[in-house]
Amino acid sequence: MSDTKISVGLMGIGTVGRGVYRILTDNCANIQRKVGAPVDIEKILVKDLGKDRGLEIEPSKLTTEVADIIDNPDIDLVVELMGGLEPALDYVKKALTNGKSVITANKDMIAMHGKELFELAEANQCDLLFEASVAGGIPIIRPLKECLAANRMQEVMGIINGTTNFMLTKMTAEGSDFNEVLEEAQAKGFAESDPTSDIEGYDAARKLAILSSIAFNSRITLNDVYVEGITKITSQDITYAQELNYVIKLLAISKETSDGIEVRVHPALIPNHHPLASVNDVFNAIFVRGDAVGDAMFYGQGAGEMPTASAVTADIMDAARACLYNVPSLIGCTCYDEKPVKSMGLTESKYYIRLRVADRPGVLASIAYAFGDKEVSLASVIQEQNEGDEAELVMVTHKVREKNLREALEMIRHLSSVIDVCNFIRVAGEDQ
Amino acid sequence: MSDTKISVGLMGIGTVGRGVYRILTDNCANIQRKVGAPVDIEKILVKDLGKDRGLEIEPSKLTTEVADIIDNPDIDLVVELMGGLEPALDYVKKALTNGKSVITANKDMIAMHGKELFELAEANQCDLLFEASVAGGIPIIRPLKECLAANRMQEVMGIINGTTNFMLTKMTAEGSDFNEVLEEAQAKGFAESDPTSDIEGYDAARKLAILSSIAFNSRITLNDVYVEGITKITSQDITYAQELNYVIKLLAISKETSDGIEVRVHPALIPNHHPLASVNDVFNAIFVRGDAVGDAMFYGQGAGEMPTASAVTADIMDAARACLYNVPSLIGCTCYDEKPVKSMGLTESKYYIRLRVADRPGVLASIAYAFGDKEVSLASVIQEQNEGDEAELVMVTHKVREKNLREALEMIRHLSSVIDVCNFIRVAGEDQ
Repeated sequence: MSDTKISVGLMGIGTVGRGVYRILTDNCANIQRKVGAPVDIEKILVKDLGKDRGLEIEPSKLTTEVADIIDNPDIDLVVELMGGLEPALDYVKKALTNGKSVITANKDMIAMHGKELFELAEANQCDLLFEASVAGGIPIIRPLKECLAANRMQEVMGIINGTTNFMLTKMTAEGSDFNEVLEEAQAKGFAESDPTSDIEGYDAARKLAILSSIAFNSRITLNDVYVEGITKITSQDITYAQELNYVIKLLAISKETSDGIEVRVHPALIPNHHPLASVNDVFNAIFVRGDAVGDAMFYGQGAGEMPTASAVTADIMDAARACLYNVPSLIGCTCYDEKPVKSMGLTESKYYIRLRVADRPGVLASIAYAFGDKEVSLASVIQEQNEGDEAELVMVTHKVREKNLREALEMIRHLSSVIDVCNFIRVAGEDQ
Repeated sequence: MSDTKISVGLMGIGTVGRGVYRILTDNCANIQRKVGAPVDIEKILVKDLGKDRGLEIEPSKLTTEVADIIDNPDIDLVVELMGGLEPALDYVKKALTNGKSVITANKDMIAMHGKELFELAEANQCDLLFEASVAGGIPIIRPLKECLAANRMQEVMGIINGTTNFMLTKMTAEGSDFNEVLEEAQAKGFAESDPTSDIEGYDAARKLAILSSIAFNSRITLNDVYVEGITKITSQDITYAQELNYVIKLLAISKETSDGIEVRVHPALIPNHHPLASVNDVFNAIFVRGDAVGDAMFYGQGAGEMPTASAVTADIMDAARACLYNVPSLIGCTCYDEKPVKSMGLTESKYYIRLRVADRPGVLASIAYAFGDKEVSLASVIQEQNEGDEAELVMVTHKVREKNLREALEMIRHLSSVIDVCNFIRVAGEDQ
C-alpha cells in the first residue's frame, strides 16, 4: 500500500455529485485497498457556499473559484458533474491542459466535443474517462473498449433512454395514451418539464454517437445520427404489435455494413423473445454483436443518483490507479478510421405500416400494386373494421430499402381509397 | 506507437487456442493499434508437431518442450489453454515465478488454486488474468473488479452453465424428459459423454466460487458451495412451475448476509418477469446487485471457440499494455477479508414442494399441521387428481429457513397418507 494520497476536485455537487461523495466517504476503506492509496475529495466547486446539501462537508473543502481545482497543484483528478456545455467544457479543457485526468458524466460534452477533448488528454498524457455518460450504472464503455477489444464489432442496439422506456412500458402494460403516460413520467420525476430531448430521441442519439464511435473506431457525431422520437406511437400501434408478437421500444441502433455505418434512433418493433424486449420501466440495456463474442447484452439502471455515481467512482478509482503508476488508464481514443455514414434511405428493415382506408372492394389491390411497383413485398396483413365505411389495414413488409418503402408510401398516400398513412415503424432484432 | 513487440507463448491449441490464434492473426492491425505494439504468438506448446490444425502455423513456432515458453526470455506473456489441473498448474506456477504474466481460461485451476497463484503473481509483479474462466465471452471478471469496484456487492445470481440451461430450456419448451434432452445435448456436443460435472452443478459451482471471491472480497472455494444438480427435475415440476408463472433454471447464487456469505448452486423457480427467466439455450447471464449500482445483468455466450477466445484475447491485450508500461494490469486479488460461509440450513427461501398423497379426507390437514409445527407457512396449494386413489399436491411456501423446511418434510415423509415427497425446489429472484 502506498502512502501517497490521490486528491480529487469535484466540480458540481448535485444529485450525482452527492452520490459520489457518499460512496467515497462510506466505502473509503475498500476503495483505498483496491486503489492502493486513499482517494479523498479535497475541493468541491459550488455556486453557493452556504447551501444545505444534506452531507457533512468540511467548509474548507467548498470553493466558488474553479481555479482552486483546475489550477491547484495538489489536485490529481478532476470530476466534472456540472452538466451542460459551458462553462463545463472550458473547465475540462483547462484541467486537461494542466495535465489533470478528468472524469465526466457529461454526454453532451463528449458527444459534441469528444475529438478535441481526447486529443487534448492524449497531448497532456492524462485520461478522460466517461463511463457514466452512457447508460448510467451499466458498465459499457470499458467493456466495449477493453473486454471486447479483440472483436470487430458489427452491431450495437440499445434501450438507452429511461424516460421513453418507462413511457412505452406503461403504454404497453396499461393501454394508456402517450400524453397520459408523459404526465405520469413528469409527476414521478422521470421526465423533465420540457421533455423534448428524451421523447424526440436526442438524448439517446447523443449516447449512441458515443457508443458507435467506440464500437466502430470512427468518429460519429450527433449530426450523423438519424433521429425519430416516440411521439407518433399510439396505443393502437402497441396493440397491433402485441397481436403480431412484438413489443415497441425506442431503439438506438448502429451497424457496420459494406456501405458505411448505419446509425439511427427510432421506435421499433422487436420480437417478444429478443433479450431487449423484456427490458422494462426505467431500465436500460445495450445489446452488442461482435465477430468473436457473438451476441452479448449489458443491462441495468440508466440513470439515478447512485447508479451513475457508481460509474463515476469506478472511473475515479481507475484514474487514481493510473495516476499512482503514472500511466494512461483506459485505452485512449480509438477513432483511427474515417468510415462513411450510410444514408437512411439505403438502410434495410422490415416495416410495420398502419393505414386508414375506405372499406370497399379493390382497395387492398391498389395498395398492393403500389408496394409491388417499388419492390416492397408484404409478409402479413391484418384488416380491422372501423366505424362507418372505414377500415384499418396493418401490414408488415419483408426486408426492404427505406427509400423504396418511402416511395411506395408516397404513392399510397395519394390513392383515393387511402384516408391516411397513420404510421410506419421499423422492425428490428429479427436476425436472432 | 512503440516498436516494441509483445511475444506470446500459447500452451495448448485446442478449440479455444485456435480461436485465439485466428483473432490475433485476422485482427492484428486493430489489436496493434489498441495495444500500442504488435502482439505475436511466438511459440505454441503441442503434443504432436505434425497434427493438422486447420491453421497456417509456421512449423518453427510449434514446440513440444514447455521450457521453450516458460523459460524463454523472449516470451512476455503465457496463455494457458491446456485445461485440467496437471501439468497446467505446474507450468503456470513456473511461468509466474519467471515473472511472466499468465492468461488462462482454466476455471478448475483458479477455483482450486487461486489463492496460491494470485500470491505468486503478486510476488513476481505480474498479472494472472482469467476472464475466460467464467461465462466464456461475457465480460464479468473485469466489470466486477473494476467497473463495479465502488460498490459493496450484495448478491450475484447467474445462469453459468450452458449445458443445463440448454436442457432446461428444451424441457420447458417441449415438455420432454430429462434423459431425452440429455441425449440430444450430447448429440449436439453441448454435453460431455460423462455429463456429471454439468448436470450435478459442479461446473457452475467452480465458476460461482470464483465470482463470489471477487464480489465479496473473501476467498470462497468449491468446498464452500452447496451444490445440487438438475437430475431430479421432471417435466411435471416444469409444468407446475409454468402454471404458477415461474420458470426453472439452474442458478448459481451468492449473497452477503449478516450471518455470512451464502453460496449455492441448485435448480430454482424464478418469476417469468425476472431478467434471468428469458435467458435460454446455451446462453449464460449473470445478475448482480450492488449498494450503489442496484441491479445489473451481463448476458452472452458462456462457451464456444470464438466467444471464449474473445475473452482470452482481451486479457492478452490488457496484459500486453500493462507489459509495455511495466505496471500491473487488473486490480489484483481482493480477498482481504475472511468472511464466514453461512450454512445451508440457515438460508431462507420460498419453496416449491411436490407431494404424492393418498386421496382421502384429512390428508391436507395432517400435512398443514406438520408445516405449522415447524413454522412453515404456505402461500399456495394446487391439488391434482392422479389415477386411482392418489393425488398430487403442489405447494409454495412463504419465506422460511431451509432447516425448518427440511424438518417439516421429514415429518411429512413419515405420515401414513403421504406416498412420496417427490421434489422440493427453492424459489429465487422474487425481491425484484
